[in-house]
Amino acid sequence: MTLILAESAIEPMPEQLWKHPAVQKYAKQRRKHPRFIVLDRSYHHSAMKTLTLNEKRGRPDIVHFALLEALGSPLNKEGLLQAHVHTVSDYVIWVNPETRLPRNYGRFVSLIEQLFEFGQIPPEGDEKQLLALKKQNLTQLMDEIKPSYTLALSRIGRPETLEATVSKLTREKKPVVLVGGFPHGHFSESATKLADEVVCIDREMLEAWTVVSRVIYEYERALSLPRKRLTDKG
Amino acid sequence: MTLILAESAIEPMPEQLWKHPAVQKYAKQRRKHPRFIVLDRSYHHSAMKTLTLNEKRGRPDIVHFALLEALGSPLNKEGLLQAHVHTVSDYVIWVNPETRLPRNYGRFVSLIEQLFEFGQIPPEGDEKQLLALKKQNLTQLMDEIKPSYTLALSRIGRPETLEATVSKLTREKKPVVLVGGFPHGHFSESATKLADEVVCIDREMLEAWTVVSRVIYEYERALSLPRKRLTDKG
Repeated sequence: MTLILAESAIEPMPEQLWKHPAVQKYAKQRRKHPRFIVLDRSYHHSAMKTLTLNEKRGRPDIVHFALLEALGSPLNKEGLLQAHVHTVSDYVIWVNPETRLPRNYGRFVSLIEQLFEFGQIPPEGDEKQLLALKKQNLTQLMDEIKPSYTLALSRIGRPETLEATVSKLTREKKPVVLVGGFPHGHFSESATKLADEVVCIDREMLEAWTVVSRVIYEYERALSLPRKRLTDKG
Repeated sequence: MTLILAESAIEPMPEQLWKHPAVQKYAKQRRKHPRFIVLDRSYHHSAMKTLTLNEKRGRPDIVHFALLEALGSPLNKEGLLQAHVHTVSDYVIWVNPETRLPRNYGRFVSLIEQLFEFGQIPPEGDEKQLLALKKQNLTQLMDEIKPSYTLALSRIGRPETLEATVSKLTREKKPVVLVGGFPHGHFSESATKLADEVVCIDREMLEAWTVVSRVIYEYERALSLPRKRLTDKG
């Protein structure tokens, strides 16, 4: 299964905010140029007021938690999951399934800042890459992946239980699941158009990390992975 | 269902470390006395070497993330979940199901520091409490809850799928689930003795937040909650 966190609220500080006093102060504390800082509502709330679509931006914690759920899952340990992060400003982060992300939030943010600065982690050398960045929009990413079926999960989709939805995915050669990596609002129209189906799994908003955890677990269940992993001794 | 994060790696700075240079430096930066700081391996790694059982301690992120999974779940929104955090140094944190925890890690840690200082959040007044602290060990907490059945999830338990395990819980009047709130190692013997059953749901270690997310979701499924919440319009 391929998981895409779409339109995720993680991005380098937008240029229009570099001169904002709160951003300058924060950058000075961090001893970095604002361009090498990740936008974070916890610290840049006042500066963000002038940004377009600001309610969908500046929440790197969502990507952090959602990736921890994805990478720590048995599905990933079996080599059956590939995760990508598509960002609100149209970057795509490829995540090596073997990456062990920092559990500490500050360290995760520093890592993402390095990634935006150098384009890959580790920043230099021919070692195996753990994270890789490119400028790419969601349509281009999907063209590259060529999914056989794309499911988007969204509160404004057709109501169906996750169990019923995911059972169909397991019959697909290359299923892709789109989960919004943002705190409020919905997928843009262009993202919705890329999906074969948009499904709503609960009547209330669920957080991205919860949706990621549940969709992965349902997929494991549909493959009988929990039972197999307990009986095969690996 | 009652969820207990047991022997969780969250505690105020132990007195023996107050004078450690790294802790003193960190406390100065935070402008707090070391006693009002939460032990965190990300910042106090070198100081922690002399602590007993140090591999199970200093990971407040585990409680943070596990509680976010619990509080954001549909089960909790239905009023069917109560979460408690039992800590490695025998405090118990009662968590109001309506609490909205900070998503930002630094803010969560500051909140827990306030909780250890004042014993409740908010620290003063007769407002509804969101978090409340007391000195209590796991046995005392269980005596208070009086579970009809206690399930502990642990890698060294009897192998069984979560689905099979949880389906039994739904027949219980007051089921309690114990999940370890620590990064490595196993429940202490005294914790294990409090469980009616110790079950292993995967052959590899799963992180506490993943176990919490999955056990809650399975419980919802066993109650047909996903379907009910989509059809009843609440």
